[in-house]
Amino acid sequence: MPGTEVGAAAGSNSASPCARLEARFARINALAEAEGMLHWDLATMMPKGGAEARGDQLAVLRALRHGLLIAPEVGDLLAEAENETAGADGDGEAAWRRANVAEMSRLWQHATALSEDQVEALSRAVSACEAAWRGARADSDFAAVAGKLETVLELVREAAAAKAEALGLAPYDALLDEYEPGGRAAEIDRTFADLETFLPGFLEEVREHQRRRPPTVMPDGPFPIERQRALAVRLMERLGFDFDHGRLDISLHPFCGGTPDDVRITTRYDEANFTSALMGVLHETGHALYERGLPQRWRRQPVGQARGMSVHESQSLLVEMQVCRSRSFLGFAAPLLKEAFAGDGPAWEADNLYRIYTRVEPGFIRVDADEVTYPAHVILRYRLERAMIAGDLAVADLPGAWNELHTKLLGLTPPDDRRGCLQDIHWYDGAWGYFPTYTLGAMTAAQLFAAAEAADPEIEPGIAAGDFTALLAWLRANVHTRGSLLATPALLRQATGRALDPAVFKAHLRRRYLG
Amino acid sequence: MPGTEVGAAAGSNSASPCARLEARFARINALAEAEGMLHWDLATMMPKGGAEARGDQLAVLRALRHGLLIAPEVGDLLAEAENETAGADGDGEAAWRRANVAEMSRLWQHATALSEDQVEALSRAVSACEAAWRGARADSDFAAVAGKLETVLELVREAAAAKAEALGLAPYDALLDEYEPGGRAAEIDRTFADLETFLPGFLEEVREHQRRRPPTVMPDGPFPIERQRALAVRLMERLGFDFDHGRLDISLHPFCGGTPDDVRITTRYDEANFTSALMGVLHETGHALYERGLPQRWRRQPVGQARGMSVHESQSLLVEMQVCRSRSFLGFAAPLLKEAFAGDGPAWEADNLYRIYTRVEPGFIRVDADEVTYPAHVILRYRLERAMIAGDLAVADLPGAWNELHTKLLGLTPPDDRRGCLQDIHWYDGAWGYFPTYTLGAMTAAQLFAAAEAADPEIEPGIAAGDFTALLAWLRANVHTRGSLLATPALLRQATGRALDPAVFKAHLRRRYLG
Repeated sequence: MPGTEVGAAAGSNSASPCARLEARFARINALAEAEGMLHWDLATMMPKGGAEARGDQLAVLRALRHGLLIAPEVGDLLAEAENETAGADGDGEAAWRRANVAEMSRLWQHATALSEDQVEALSRAVSACEAAWRGARADSDFAAVAGKLETVLELVREAAAAKAEALGLAPYDALLDEYEPGGRAAEIDRTFADLETFLPGFLEEVREHQRRRPPTVMPDGPFPIERQRALAVRLMERLGFDFDHGRLDISLHPFCGGTPDDVRITTRYDEANFTSALMGVLHETGHALYERGLPQRWRRQPVGQARGMSVHESQSLLVEMQVCRSRSFLGFAAPLLKEAFAGDGPAWEADNLYRIYTRVEPGFIRVDADEVTYPAHVILRYRLERAMIAGDLAVADLPGAWNELHTKLLGLTPPDDRRGCLQDIHWYDGAWGYFPTYTLGAMTAAQLFAAAEAADPEIEPGIAAGDFTALLAWLRANVHTRGSLLATPALLRQATGRALDPAVFKAHLRRRYLG
Repeated sequence: MPGTEVGAAAGSNSASPCARLEARFARINALAEAEGMLHWDLATMMPKGGAEARGDQLAVLRALRHGLLIAPEVGDLLAEAENETAGADGDGEAAWRRANVAEMSRLWQHATALSEDQVEALSRAVSACEAAWRGARADSDFAAVAGKLETVLELVREAAAAKAEALGLAPYDALLDEYEPGGRAAEIDRTFADLETFLPGFLEEVREHQRRRPPTVMPDGPFPIERQRALAVRLMERLGFDFDHGRLDISLHPFCGGTPDDVRITTRYDEANFTSALMGVLHETGHALYERGLPQRWRRQPVGQARGMSVHESQSLLVEMQVCRSRSFLGFAAPLLKEAFAGDGPAWEADNLYRIYTRVEPGFIRVDADEVTYPAHVILRYRLERAMIAGDLAVADLPGAWNELHTKLLGLTPPDDRRGCLQDIHWYDGAWGYFPTYTLGAMTAAQLFAAAEAADPEIEPGIAAGDFTALLAWLRANVHTRGSLLATPALLRQATGRALDPAVFKAHLRRRYLG
């Protein structure tokens, strides 16, 4: 199996160009897996004194991985492999191999577009900026990080220009392509414009509708962490998470890490309120099910990886937003929650839990936002990062631009930069072109879930009964096992019969929040 | 700092041969650190379904590390670096650099002595043999693994011959040199002959002496794991273990892993009996203190690593045998143990705990052996593995030879091979030339501890009072921070004023077991 081939034989000069590349990428991605595990350890287990050594270990692994990717012979092998696989189509081995070569090529183009000096300068600038950002955010002092962010932006713009040249794309699209392969700003513009027209009026309707609902009753704590964890494990297993191939641990920022055969998700618990940690676990479970379901045959090959960030986010949001915040799911889960915490009274009724889990309230912080207001937070960041990459917005003007757009989109003006342009790590950490994938993921989730329910009438009653077999089977067949065989729009079309359509997302919102 | 240099600059062609080699070994050992962490995770955290992928990750890291070590330019660089550093002596930077180059050279000679084919054949044979051994041991069925062990032995003998040629050593010494750099069978023969003469009669005396002691009272359990762990942590901290740079976890087989800046030790608990897990933790703490104390200036350089297996084992046995099983230590620890488990009665008195922790009883299993009978187990294995490597003992004759020698050395005949030649993983796992380091370590521990007590009169009263500052300071200065600057005999001579001397070990045994 090329996917798990890690020895030297398949990489020898007598093997075909494809086989040689597959052997190389098996090594590259085994290193990436090692990095993934060391990152997980860093976030969950590592004592603080291990940080410096861990940074060195990760840097060495990254450098070796990068070296394997940009080695001189790779360019020639890719050209030969493209000939070797030309014309293959459909679902067969040859088509996978061809798609694999195309993905290799994309990764190689990204990696070789920048000089070693550029990569190193960016890496240093980002480390310095991220460190300064932590202090700046704590102090709500944008000036303390503005200079370092300017340096990062300058280097990111240079990188965007270099990648644009190499990939034949516009600079912003070249950045976006790293997180969302094939994603284009022109399409995102259209989609987001549609949402932006829809959302403000809709939000008014929702808030009006909400005012007429019975009041929400919060369950009384405390909720011991061990009980929260046991409940989370129980629901994870129900959803299909396999603890023989994964773990649930604690970290400051929840994430899904590890590898497809050993998926490590994390959460953080609040003894006073279980609702957020629980839904966080279910969100990460969606990511985990995707990773676990990636095609075994193409492990460690580019075509065997998750399709991109919007599809990844669609899998977590499908589980969280479409399934677990639904009235059907909460009807099944309410007795389990009540039992887990020995709860009693109206707070534990499914209708009340549903009201808690679907409460809409505009706020300043993206990661705390509900499903209805979340897109506004994303659109704001997308607009601003596009302007900064285009050179139309200076870092010095960012706080003002942020607050102005926030007021326009959400009707609230951030009282300080901590609750404004300092809240997210992304830009300070060098991740430009990432933000739109959150909302593309939310829309994709709605569209995949609607198609799944239409395709299999067992899914909806299954959710109400706590049986997710039919849903998982549909996701495995239509998304997970497809890996990166198809471009995202083609994957969506095969699975749902159409391109990404804001109407489906809007219909979901109307049904849930005005229904 | 070369020790932490992981970038490309110091490895560039314009740098000195030493600097280029140091940059290379910084990478090699950063990979080794990554492997160490992945091994720790495998043994403590990994779900069982992650095993195959983890095996691949480790194989890729090992292959890349091996590739960096045997790269064609390394031989030339070593020759140049030897010239660059020739003549340096003493303790200064130049002497460290010279010793570093010598260690690099030794590692390179070991790595290049075998062909790629030999390495791969041995790796495959060992994997197959180790897997068969697990079943064979469970079933006490030597015949089920004998064929695979024959293959391993044949390949190990070939490897020994190749390394002997490359290193200018006898075949067994060439194997020994991997675990015990500079160790020679001729010296071990002399040392072990001395012990072998001494031990049988001494054992009789000890058993006679023991019969006159008051009976031992075992504390009544159960001993909840959380309390055992809390007590272990408390004692570890007392001994100087820094939890900002390390952890204590659970694994099937206790070990000390991780890296010097993030030392991970493990134990396994038995709720019915706390004594073994507790002493196991203190043993691993000795290993951990050594790792943590290795010279920061030479992190990731060969000269910055632990000196060899006998010195490593001396540090764990110094803490376990010399310190923690002493009456002084148990005088300090008894009230803590009693408090930890809310114990009461004569079982919790220091004298009784001391009797428990110094009980001598010949048995079949090495890892369960006491300090007095342990050397016989090691001498047995050493004799047999030397004979097998020399071609004087066939695998088919191993069980008989084992049982005969066991009867002679310990006065007991193993009733089956599970309690005989199937008990240890070492040979089946390809580790030949390792066994003698256990007893060399025990003797070294006695000699270092005697020298430490003689050098600093604060050490003995410190132990009785639970203050290990003076002892740790002596070990840091005389052993830990010395890394691999000196050969083991020179290290021992600097620290204790003489070569390894069985008389010191024997004096310790007499004092403790007949005193």
